[in-house]
Amino acid sequence: MTKKRVAVIGAGPSGLAALRAFSTARRQGHDVPDIVCFEKQSSAGGIWNYTWRTGLDEYGEPVHGSMYRFLWSNGPKEGLEFSDYSFEEHFGRPIPSYPPRAVLLDYILGRMKRDDLQGDMRYSTPVRDVEWDADAEHFIVTVEDLANGHVYSEYFDYVLCASGHFSTPNVPSFPGFDLFPGRILHAHDFRDANEFAGKDILLIGSSYSAEDIASQCYKYGAKSIIFSYRSRPLGFNWPEDFSEHPLLEKMEGNIAHFSDGKTRKVDAIILCTGYKHHFPFLPDILRLKTNNRLYPLDLYKGVCWIDNPKLLYLGMQDQYYTFNMFDAQAWFARDVIMGRIALPTAADMTADTHVWRKREEALEDAYQEIDFQTDYVRDLMKYTDYPPFDLDKVAEIFKEWKHDKVDGIMTFRDRSYPSVLTGTMAPPHHTVWMKALDDSLEAFLAPVAEPQRKVSAG
Amino acid sequence: MTKKRVAVIGAGPSGLAALRAFSTARRQGHDVPDIVCFEKQSSAGGIWNYTWRTGLDEYGEPVHGSMYRFLWSNGPKEGLEFSDYSFEEHFGRPIPSYPPRAVLLDYILGRMKRDDLQGDMRYSTPVRDVEWDADAEHFIVTVEDLANGHVYSEYFDYVLCASGHFSTPNVPSFPGFDLFPGRILHAHDFRDANEFAGKDILLIGSSYSAEDIASQCYKYGAKSIIFSYRSRPLGFNWPEDFSEHPLLEKMEGNIAHFSDGKTRKVDAIILCTGYKHHFPFLPDILRLKTNNRLYPLDLYKGVCWIDNPKLLYLGMQDQYYTFNMFDAQAWFARDVIMGRIALPTAADMTADTHVWRKREEALEDAYQEIDFQTDYVRDLMKYTDYPPFDLDKVAEIFKEWKHDKVDGIMTFRDRSYPSVLTGTMAPPHHTVWMKALDDSLEAFLAPVAEPQRKVSAG
Repeated sequence: MTKKRVAVIGAGPSGLAALRAFSTARRQGHDVPDIVCFEKQSSAGGIWNYTWRTGLDEYGEPVHGSMYRFLWSNGPKEGLEFSDYSFEEHFGRPIPSYPPRAVLLDYILGRMKRDDLQGDMRYSTPVRDVEWDADAEHFIVTVEDLANGHVYSEYFDYVLCASGHFSTPNVPSFPGFDLFPGRILHAHDFRDANEFAGKDILLIGSSYSAEDIASQCYKYGAKSIIFSYRSRPLGFNWPEDFSEHPLLEKMEGNIAHFSDGKTRKVDAIILCTGYKHHFPFLPDILRLKTNNRLYPLDLYKGVCWIDNPKLLYLGMQDQYYTFNMFDAQAWFARDVIMGRIALPTAADMTADTHVWRKREEALEDAYQEIDFQTDYVRDLMKYTDYPPFDLDKVAEIFKEWKHDKVDGIMTFRDRSYPSVLTGTMAPPHHTVWMKALDDSLEAFLAPVAEPQRKVSAG
Repeated sequence: MTKKRVAVIGAGPSGLAALRAFSTARRQGHDVPDIVCFEKQSSAGGIWNYTWRTGLDEYGEPVHGSMYRFLWSNGPKEGLEFSDYSFEEHFGRPIPSYPPRAVLLDYILGRMKRDDLQGDMRYSTPVRDVEWDADAEHFIVTVEDLANGHVYSEYFDYVLCASGHFSTPNVPSFPGFDLFPGRILHAHDFRDANEFAGKDILLIGSSYSAEDIASQCYKYGAKSIIFSYRSRPLGFNWPEDFSEHPLLEKMEGNIAHFSDGKTRKVDAIILCTGYKHHFPFLPDILRLKTNNRLYPLDLYKGVCWIDNPKLLYLGMQDQYYTFNMFDAQAWFARDVIMGRIALPTAADMTADTHVWRKREEALEDAYQEIDFQTDYVRDLMKYTDYPPFDLDKVAEIFKEWKHDKVDGIMTFRDRSYPSVLTGTMAPPHHTVWMKALDDSLEAFLAPVAEPQRKVSAG
């Protein structure tokens, strides 16, 4: 009997989690399918890669990443630690709770490199089309090898879609944008806060992008931060020079008019208006259609495409949990593919999603949302041998983190948490976040604060 | 016998020229094929539309346009006038030689609106795939109706590819871009020169984009303009605060290091590094592969895809001639499709292209290039009834324009030329270009300079 073939779409945290799940089974002596991983970027790491590029890349393809310089984790690393690969194991010692991007990327890639993935990695290879051949009972996956300008197709028994959902910006327009005498960009294209030093910045939106990009801009010298929200303000105890207004009605030149009648002069506008689940390579009958929420429908256990469970999705939920949840999903997906988990009937799978959805709809605040996702991960982990970890402790950490942000939106990253794997308390960082202008791995891991490297020669 | 069906890809100047060619034949009483025009933007006009958007549009599709605010024609309108629809006919009176974008768009759309196009226009509908079915002898064209998220296919006897080649940026990287503390953008994403007021701008490239964007930035208050060229400087008599350097070697922070050993501090970097011919919707066997040049191979008369002449391309050349050349090509394409022009054998068509290519390779300067393209248009027009116009006179205008730019790169747009159709000398504009900050159609057509509308409230 020929080996089953699995296509993994994407080599970000979710796709790599799938590779890890299979390689773990292989190391345990099990016979695992052949895996091919198609990644449109030129290296693994997904959204944790940084590029200065915006819009279209060197091949004329949409730039995948929404990553910007100076991004530090906006939640404690103790909430996302892989349960089979601790930060302490990777770095050889405890590190502070809020690492910058390069450190998290190093951690993700570290598990990949130390592992014998045995996946067939095809970089710079976006997927163009996935068709299900019902007679042959396999997928026809068509991809483009960008470096060679070569389009080709292969057959797969399973497709694991782990392409992310923070790559395709949701970009609304407002009256007067056509005549605004400055830059208008979506958070997806934000790269370097230094560009906005000395400027009055309008940020439209009131979720993580707005909160974090505003904080970055303030840290790197923006003159003032003006938020505009649709439903409710972020409401943190912002520094002076921050203000929150209801929705923008229009721009007149560089004057913003808000629905409360107030006006403000602005130099640049950043649309922090979220992302779209976007699967241009999937036909209608295979395509997940959802907004960003904790429990999308049509996916059993948030993973199996109920209409055709040989298609599986990873990481499509709104997220408190990230890396460890992707792992739990990947282990579940692996065990479905390897026949270790028997799926219920389509009707029963659908009924199960509706139970979760109903509960999701009744959630009233972030604390309940955290508990909900904790239970979701716990439920997933019941089915597999993903190494157990103290989920209640992680939920506590997330709740403390929520408190910390209310206590000080510019200081919460100076807090420390214990690892739920090793029990070790994270050491404080040598420099408080507001003064840590160098976000390199080297600066972060240095034992003491070094003289700040010049981040701008301006 | 059922009518032939023609798919036109793109409703810019080239695609609209095709619609006009067929509608002219129809008005003359001929039986013409059914035309469907697929346009990815939400309106006609191609690259002459302006949007503030950059990167990805409201549907997550790459933004087609490279248009920026304050763009005025960079050549005299007398060189591009449609020979069947003069500027005087459209505007009811003579207008100056160098109109801003909105005026040219109005002119293009004017001919379309006054015409009974009878094309089936499908806006917001990018083409996803074109396949040739050799047995059925037709194309299968697959498109996406973005507004309804609906992918569908139709059959066509002919495909006219008029999708442009100034939409997909060619974006090189340079050492140090990852750490540059400011904005790096390609000309494709340039929108509003006001953003760069007071700044030191580095422009990489030495063709039209660099020349024009630099002039815009200077006009709207940039502090200094620094060009970097690969092979030769633009070499115009630039104002003070302009400088030209050989190729950038690296950035260190915001310090540019050039290959002549000089360094400059810069605030923003604009890559004026050209565009790629990009046809992701075409399979290899139908896909034109060329750089931007006066005579791409594989196209008979620059139009017919020799390997399968039921596929025709419009506007794929590097251009002195534009609207009127697209017309000449469109009339040629129409007459091939309508059986009025019999095509030679593939070998003879290829031989013909090599004669042109050999001549193209021997061209030594812009004057010879102008003569070459003049002869190309003249040759095309021999085959069709596109209304004749004085090509020698147009060639003279282009050569004078070249002189004018050398005389004064900031003043050449203040010159006037006579229409080769009506003989009327264009009136001078009420305001010299350097002082005309308002680029609206209304301001341009006003009989006298009005008080400048505020273009920035800064």
